[in-house]
Amino acid sequence: MEDEFSAGDREVLYRVIERRRDVRAFRPDPIPSETLYRILSAAHHAPSVGLMQPWNFIVIQDTGTKARIKEIFLRENEKAAAHYSGPRGMLYRSLKLEGIEEAPVNLCVTADRTRAGPHVLGRNTIVDTDLYSTCCAIENLWLAARVEGIGVGWVSILSIDELRKVLFIPSHVVVVAYLCLGYAQEFFDEPELQRRRWASRVPLDQLRVPRALGTVGFLKRRQQLRVAPARAGQVARRRL
Amino acid sequence: MEDEFSAGDREVLYRVIERRRDVRAFRPDPIPSETLYRILSAAHHAPSVGLMQPWNFIVIQDTGTKARIKEIFLRENEKAAAHYSGPRGMLYRSLKLEGIEEAPVNLCVTADRTRAGPHVLGRNTIVDTDLYSTCCAIENLWLAARVEGIGVGWVSILSIDELRKVLFIPSHVVVVAYLCLGYAQEFFDEPELQRRRWASRVPLDQLRVPRALGTVGFLKRRQQLRVAPARAGQVARRRL
Repeated sequence: MEDEFSAGDREVLYRVIERRRDVRAFRPDPIPSETLYRILSAAHHAPSVGLMQPWNFIVIQDTGTKARIKEIFLRENEKAAAHYSGPRGMLYRSLKLEGIEEAPVNLCVTADRTRAGPHVLGRNTIVDTDLYSTCCAIENLWLAARVEGIGVGWVSILSIDELRKVLFIPSHVVVVAYLCLGYAQEFFDEPELQRRRWASRVPLDQLRVPRALGTVGFLKRRQQLRVAPARAGQVARRRL
Repeated sequence: MEDEFSAGDREVLYRVIERRRDVRAFRPDPIPSETLYRILSAAHHAPSVGLMQPWNFIVIQDTGTKARIKEIFLRENEKAAAHYSGPRGMLYRSLKLEGIEEAPVNLCVTADRTRAGPHVLGRNTIVDTDLYSTCCAIENLWLAARVEGIGVGWVSILSIDELRKVLFIPSHVVVVAYLCLGYAQEFFDEPELQRRRWASRVPLDQLRVPRALGTVGFLKRRQQLRVAPARAGQVARRRL
């Protein structure tokens, strides 16, 4: 096929995916409009159920709004920190979990549940496919930002209700993500939470379920592998 | 920075994103294990809240399981088709909405809500971030498949309850997506639903909300742009 990708192209994509990071430390340099447009355009080329394109991208650049959202984060983070005590609590409090005010651009990514009318093709039985589509858009955005040298940090320690008030978001619109964007001070070689020994990457082999019928293996909490009893005669547990 | 991406690299990523399609017509050729492994590894390198990595990938290759899942689709699709009448109903029935049995590999992508224990960093206030992370993994997978020449089709016209029974999925695990994978017969230049005149891509400018504070513009249903009343003195509606 004429549109096939070369081995070099494949290497580029895998490298982008491998080198993407959740970034919380930004340089103050502004993001040029054309760059931001390319990143949002990448997001907009995500798949969506019934071509519903439910997303909106609220671009926040003024310091006043950022400061109000930072306050929401600080309140919620205090509550979150209370879940951890001892050394883990100290580690938690030492982590930088957002860059709301440093990042030149904040983006609130939303999903309008009414976008394409009451019946969306492919959305009859699984209503949340609109939210899922919006998350695919976010991942496109994240990868596009990466090749532009721009870091993205997803801030999930927020009160959605308070965010709605600050950003005047109507009730039929779901807040899916609040992202900080800016040129990264650094892209680390491994995820920040792994680097700081909060968590580590699970081997992929533990997450693949090699054959569904008869043997279903699921990682249980705290990374213990549990394998459901196999049906007699169907113990076909093998590598892919 | 040493790890910066070149203009050529950027072009590759944008081209992959632009050329990704929802594919429903597959060639029967099997997907080599190493290729499938690379695709799943790309998925596994997605961002996840608190590095929770909540996903599992159930690989379905046997014809019996596929046939049972195809039956679930057929029942659900009959219900979905009942929402459309006249020419739109005829168009709906003419669309190929899945490739479950033709695709050499079906993948059920799930999210284990208990994966990292009761308190996941960043998941206190927005519990669905585990599902959102899993969707980011799906988009990585989709792009990786694209550079391998492999089409991905998301089948959302299914009963999750019935799927659970066929695949033995425990209750703490959410079924996020059911995907068909195989070498594509063709990658079309535009989305299938646009090509068949079911829906079309919205101009990106209608989806950006240029400035949040004071003016919030949201696309309303059926693509009518609505702009909320601006606060006096803050009518700063401008391009990015």
